[in-house]
Amino acid sequence: MSSEPTPDSFTIVFQPSGVRGKVEEGTTLRRAATQLGVEIESICADTATCGKCRVLIEDGHLGKVHSSPTHASAMRPTEEQWITKRAKTWRRMGLDPERLRLSCQAEVHGDMVVFVPESSRGNRQIIRKSATDRVIEIRPAVRRYYVEVEPATLDNPRGDLERLSQSLVEAMDRVHPEPDWTAPPADALTIDFHALRHLADALRDGNWSVSVTVWQDREILDVRPGYREELYGIAVDVGSTAVAVYVCDLITGEVVTSESMMNPQTAFGDDIMSRMTYANEHEDGLATLHDAVITGLNSLITRARRAARIQPEDLLELVIVGNTTMHHLLLGLTTKHLSTVPFVPTSHRPLDVKARDLGLDVNPGANVHLLPIAASFVGADAMGVIIAEEPHKQDENLLIIDIGTNAELVLGNRHGLVCTSTPTGPAFEGAHIEYGMRAAVGAIERIEINAESLEPRYRVIGTEGWEPAATEDRTGPVKGICGSAIIDGVAEMFRVGILSPRGHFAKGIDSPRVRQGELGWEYVIAWESETSIGRDIPITLDDVRQIQLAKAALYTAAQILLRELGLQTPDKIILAGAFGSHIDTTKALMLGMIPDCPLDRVFSVGNAAGDGARIALLNRYKREEAAEIAASIRRVELPVDPDFQSEYMLAMNFPHMSNPFPSVAHLIPDNGPDPMAKRFTGGR
Amino acid sequence: MSSEPTPDSFTIVFQPSGVRGKVEEGTTLRRAATQLGVEIESICADTATCGKCRVLIEDGHLGKVHSSPTHASAMRPTEEQWITKRAKTWRRMGLDPERLRLSCQAEVHGDMVVFVPESSRGNRQIIRKSATDRVIEIRPAVRRYYVEVEPATLDNPRGDLERLSQSLVEAMDRVHPEPDWTAPPADALTIDFHALRHLADALRDGNWSVSVTVWQDREILDVRPGYREELYGIAVDVGSTAVAVYVCDLITGEVVTSESMMNPQTAFGDDIMSRMTYANEHEDGLATLHDAVITGLNSLITRARRAARIQPEDLLELVIVGNTTMHHLLLGLTTKHLSTVPFVPTSHRPLDVKARDLGLDVNPGANVHLLPIAASFVGADAMGVIIAEEPHKQDENLLIIDIGTNAELVLGNRHGLVCTSTPTGPAFEGAHIEYGMRAAVGAIERIEINAESLEPRYRVIGTEGWEPAATEDRTGPVKGICGSAIIDGVAEMFRVGILSPRGHFAKGIDSPRVRQGELGWEYVIAWESETSIGRDIPITLDDVRQIQLAKAALYTAAQILLRELGLQTPDKIILAGAFGSHIDTTKALMLGMIPDCPLDRVFSVGNAAGDGARIALLNRYKREEAAEIAASIRRVELPVDPDFQSEYMLAMNFPHMSNPFPSVAHLIPDNGPDPMAKRFTGGR
Repeated sequence: MSSEPTPDSFTIVFQPSGVRGKVEEGTTLRRAATQLGVEIESICADTATCGKCRVLIEDGHLGKVHSSPTHASAMRPTEEQWITKRAKTWRRMGLDPERLRLSCQAEVHGDMVVFVPESSRGNRQIIRKSATDRVIEIRPAVRRYYVEVEPATLDNPRGDLERLSQSLVEAMDRVHPEPDWTAPPADALTIDFHALRHLADALRDGNWSVSVTVWQDREILDVRPGYREELYGIAVDVGSTAVAVYVCDLITGEVVTSESMMNPQTAFGDDIMSRMTYANEHEDGLATLHDAVITGLNSLITRARRAARIQPEDLLELVIVGNTTMHHLLLGLTTKHLSTVPFVPTSHRPLDVKARDLGLDVNPGANVHLLPIAASFVGADAMGVIIAEEPHKQDENLLIIDIGTNAELVLGNRHGLVCTSTPTGPAFEGAHIEYGMRAAVGAIERIEINAESLEPRYRVIGTEGWEPAATEDRTGPVKGICGSAIIDGVAEMFRVGILSPRGHFAKGIDSPRVRQGELGWEYVIAWESETSIGRDIPITLDDVRQIQLAKAALYTAAQILLRELGLQTPDKIILAGAFGSHIDTTKALMLGMIPDCPLDRVFSVGNAAGDGARIALLNRYKREEAAEIAASIRRVELPVDPDFQSEYMLAMNFPHMSNPFPSVAHLIPDNGPDPMAKRFTGGR
Repeated sequence: MSSEPTPDSFTIVFQPSGVRGKVEEGTTLRRAATQLGVEIESICADTATCGKCRVLIEDGHLGKVHSSPTHASAMRPTEEQWITKRAKTWRRMGLDPERLRLSCQAEVHGDMVVFVPESSRGNRQIIRKSATDRVIEIRPAVRRYYVEVEPATLDNPRGDLERLSQSLVEAMDRVHPEPDWTAPPADALTIDFHALRHLADALRDGNWSVSVTVWQDREILDVRPGYREELYGIAVDVGSTAVAVYVCDLITGEVVTSESMMNPQTAFGDDIMSRMTYANEHEDGLATLHDAVITGLNSLITRARRAARIQPEDLLELVIVGNTTMHHLLLGLTTKHLSTVPFVPTSHRPLDVKARDLGLDVNPGANVHLLPIAASFVGADAMGVIIAEEPHKQDENLLIIDIGTNAELVLGNRHGLVCTSTPTGPAFEGAHIEYGMRAAVGAIERIEINAESLEPRYRVIGTEGWEPAATEDRTGPVKGICGSAIIDGVAEMFRVGILSPRGHFAKGIDSPRVRQGELGWEYVIAWESETSIGRDIPITLDDVRQIQLAKAALYTAAQILLRELGLQTPDKIILAGAFGSHIDTTKALMLGMIPDCPLDRVFSVGNAAGDGARIALLNRYKREEAAEIAASIRRVELPVDPDFQSEYMLAMNFPHMSNPFPSVAHLIPDNGPDPMAKRFTGGR
């Protein structure tokens, strides 16, 4: 049922989208945009204060449309003042101030072609570089509105909150560019207790004009005098090893500053099991670990906001991800029942907690959002990875592996997701490895072995190039081997024939580096002279076993997920997490650590959990998505039957020539048949 | 559309209500009751744990119904155990344990007459003695449910909160006796952060049975192992002068214990104006006054709960009333704008704040409800009085006057309410009176004057009988005169002719007590020898003026409200507040302090504000009522025009013989015409 345009209607074309349509004479350009489904930003509720809605009016023709700045209404003083003040800036940016208008003020009096610059677009987006580039619409849960409130008078002595609420919902209605959006009723708005305490002074200090921050269209978090744009949020990734904060501008979506540190809980245990043991068995253990991470977070937040010159009260929301143990310790939830069968978390749900209840040094009214937990050991960090990588929106089957001391695996596509987790032991992080260490200065991080000479070369963190040799007057820099290099080393030892497909040291190898040491067979990576610890640094037979155990756990878990969905192999593999991003994916395939997959379909995405936190911070609807996924994802438990056990044992082998992964078959040596290895379940 | 009862239906009669109807065979008695609209209490969701639903099955006939305990199903072990354990108690109470059944267990297998004892009735009520006795249904905002939760297993590893929520809404549905009530969906329940922290341990300590406290059917406040009945709330009245707490059992509705103290803010100012001045003009003044009242409240709460042996964590809600200044200082809201034109509060709305945000020593998850504010100086205390006295439900026009240093007046009936407030000055509280003092030991509290001899007699707080005389070896007990006695004294001085209708001392009175002292004319109430202060204690001319000013303010405000509703006189007057309850209503009428009203229609109701807090604590729907009233009550400002000023001046006179109040005309002396007094606007 379309009605004829009334006689005094004009055609407006919005560029660059090209959206066009007729609007009535006298409509403001911003309202016209809303009517035609084009979103133009605003904070100040059309009072010509914020300038967020600026547009350029094209001079010329487009199709049948003749456009000219004179087709818009004349400027009123407030608009003119705003534009004149900034004319120089626009000229410097190559924009013609003569064509610039505030779309909330300029009214339609003729056909127009209107260019909406990126900064004025309502559905601003950021591009995330990941396995697949994607755009994130900026739709934060907290939004700031500039509100002009009716002053209190003897004739209108309603409470400040009542008058503010009324003006606020009117401003919300005007500001929101989404066509279908409607503000809640004024009395449905709640107010944070701390914001309430500042309300009366803020209104008067701002001469009845205030900037109001609203959370999820329903809670007033903050009221500040006058027009104030600064609005920031923090995405937090609490890993077992490292804690990272990303301070984001909630208007532009940009990361303003970021900081990271070792998780201070490391002092109480390296991995999640030892932390839980500490929390469960020491008096005040839980409080100690909780306080440690909160104190750490506060120092990170303070560092970050000082670097960006941000006031604590301008930090209005946090989104935190972390594995289930980190999640519980951060909230001060007991881990007693998380560490024992049936490993049940206190809650799977997404949670919103007041920052002041957690003791975080931000605006006391700020909310802290925790992404939901998918399964006992597939935590909020995995949910972060999921909303960053979006397997639930793809046709291809994605296998996401977040590797830490515990690996979290998610498999699936738009038709459904399954997840599981498996303890991989600390070998991948360099622990339980004879000369293992964290990825820190002095750690070997890459190893290659020459197939002829069996001589290795390596790269050390903190020094340039390969194999920095010791000089006569200086010891070498090597202190140990970190996780990624252990994978490299074992894969290379297998490739050059030092190791058999079952992980045995080959007999009769002619190299001084392959020897029987105190701990049994070993291969020396660095001689004493190359180290700063005064000892040869080898990879031992036991180290090889640790890697075999860990990779078998990972591989078997992946196989179980594939079987659950009736798949042979995934279409794409994403390795997430700090370790995942340092790993050489070719080596991982050579070792049979992950299911077979074409090399160009295996991606390392780095801290995808942190990215997920940032995405959820910038787009509230992603939280709803996460909650829906958490409710629908199928949790697969690793079976305990004997078949599984023998499968796991077989998965300890390396895929070899009689049964290699097609994707890396050309790299695998022909090192003779191995009756056990034949039955390796990988590949085809 | 009524369907025929199926063949195997039986008639059940519930006593004492007499409600009867047919229910299907096998229905439990409690379900039968719900079907027929009879509410039977339960906490344990029909698990035969709480015994709240016990009923007695009558043996005999009622109409066509033949009833017998054997018409109910046989007892299962849990029920039998519950009843056997308590058989002695029942016998002692004169109840036959043979006829006792738990209505959640006993099923219908024949016609029955069932007696529901008062303690089992779902719509339990308390009777409030007030100007009009009335019943209050016990429907608190917090309710406790006993919930048996499915244990966590490897097959059901959902989070504790998710499993609890599911079982809780099922229990809520079973427990609620109201026919139309439905539980919210499980995922709509939120949980207080502190309750979340105790959730996992509580479930396991209680072997998956817990007692859960829910606020407003939507927020889990507390989770405790096993079956636990204790559930308390606190009604608080924060007056400018006194603070009172009433600890209430939220299941029975009884006041378990109460405590009161001087408001510790008194150290910073006697009345609300001086407190606001302190808060506004001292650095940290607001924080100082806020801390003072919170510290005071905490000591009262601790004293009260210790007396009743209640744990802090069993105190699950507070309802607080107080005038607008007390309300703001308690919440830590600035009073800067409340003390200056146009006297606007931060918020009129009812507010719910976490007890921990206020620093109150109760369950940290408890909510604190503040009744709404009707107008700038008609505060939450007046709202308390309104819901206690319910003028909005009456046909008669009620005038409610809450007298303090500021008087709050409400007038109206079911067709609408108007309110106003007026400063009365501190005279009524004994301040600004030469020998005025608080109502404390040593204060004269009642005065009578013999019309012949002009000799007074008085009663002193802390001593027995009238006019305790001094003996030779002991000084008299009198220290001063409190507010109620000043009213008495001035009224008596007028009655016996010492004062003219305009408040002048009559000439030529032959009494040594009427004399010109240093401060002008005065009437001596107590001679030096009767006092402990070594001085004569008179009522001075200036004291009389103070009372005249105060009573004129009160009277004029009442007149303005009456005029607003087009009324001559109210049908009933209610004097609330500590002062209002000590006042002699006859004297108040003689002085023209309140509008004319038959003596038996003037009531002193004591601390009605505190009663209102208790009512709102026990019945959540009363809060909704209060919110509706606050939104609809008409605020009347005292006019500033010259007519009003002269009216106010005239109201300073006492209604005299040419124009007395009909209700007290017989008491008023014929003390001659007074040209000014003739024009007194009261009466007819």
